[in-house]
Amino acid sequence: MIENSELNVPQDLEKCIKFHGHLCPGLTYGYLVAKEAIRLLDIRRSEDEEIVAMPENDSCAVDALQVLLGTTAGKGNLLLKDYGKNVYTILDRASGRGFRFSRKISCRNDQQDKVLKSKSLLSRPFEEIFSTEEISASMPPYARISPSEPCAKCGELTMADKLRQGQDGKSMCIPCSDS
Amino acid sequence: MIENSELNVPQDLEKCIKFHGHLCPGLTYGYLVAKEAIRLLDIRRSEDEEIVAMPENDSCAVDALQVLLGTTAGKGNLLLKDYGKNVYTILDRASGRGFRFSRKISCRNDQQDKVLKSKSLLSRPFEEIFSTEEISASMPPYARISPSEPCAKCGELTMADKLRQGQDGKSMCIPCSDS
Repeated sequence: MIENSELNVPQDLEKCIKFHGHLCPGLTYGYLVAKEAIRLLDIRRSEDEEIVAMPENDSCAVDALQVLLGTTAGKGNLLLKDYGKNVYTILDRASGRGFRFSRKISCRNDQQDKVLKSKSLLSRPFEEIFSTEEISASMPPYARISPSEPCAKCGELTMADKLRQGQDGKSMCIPCSDS
Repeated sequence: MIENSELNVPQDLEKCIKFHGHLCPGLTYGYLVAKEAIRLLDIRRSEDEEIVAMPENDSCAVDALQVLLGTTAGKGNLLLKDYGKNVYTILDRASGRGFRFSRKISCRNDQQDKVLKSKSLLSRPFEEIFSTEEISASMPPYARISPSEPCAKCGELTMADKLRQGQDGKSMCIPCSDS
């Protein structure tokens, strides 16, 4: 196995590799998008929900967005749409600006070494790999916070606004309500 | 703002805080679950998809699972169910074992300082906070990989198995198909 320190890649990409577990073209696409969004929007990593990422796939790229932009699955500012599209929209709540990045080049799942393929992507101009469009998007709402209450059937603690009212007027969690 | 180094928390929790952006009870619940899963299953951080996490909510806790277990949104081994339930199932593909953790104590959204509340959780025995159940679960399939093809309408690259066949036989991405 190649150690990260032997990869000779930028330090911020090393952070992404450490989080993701390995270097691959998918992660590199996310890295390139995050860097370009930081440059265009002049933003810092999102401590809370200042930045919002809307990837239209659940590929490796998402992990680079999480690490570099702070748009994480547990913070409500990673709004993943499972369309399988190689598209990433990044919004900045402070300026109200947003950019949509759509990958232009195909990535074949051939046997070419993932590390070599990733490093070759790093050497190409961004505009060769992605098309970029500034968009006017309304900002999505902030993550909801609601207290937890026990489900009337299983007793397990559940966010109140995710409980469903049964015919008997009792509030049940989604799995109990569906069963 | 309190610097992480001033928080006087364990180093692995510091890593979670750095990724998540701040210390809060939600993150601490995820931290406690991840640590207990590591202890019970005798596992290391998942480089690829060796470990699978199935949180039944999208709260801050998810970020601690990502950091400590390597079950990340971009790797296909974070199978988030948006039920709002304070439940976390962690599976180990190698041993075929899994544990389900269900939070027993409520967390009021009052004004008590989040850092103090988090630190008080760290001082309590795990079994006071979560119930633990060993489960026999079948392992979920690995993440699918499929080549990208252009949508016949918008032309954007889309994972082939996410394309939908239109009445005219052309393959379209989900947004184009729905519009």
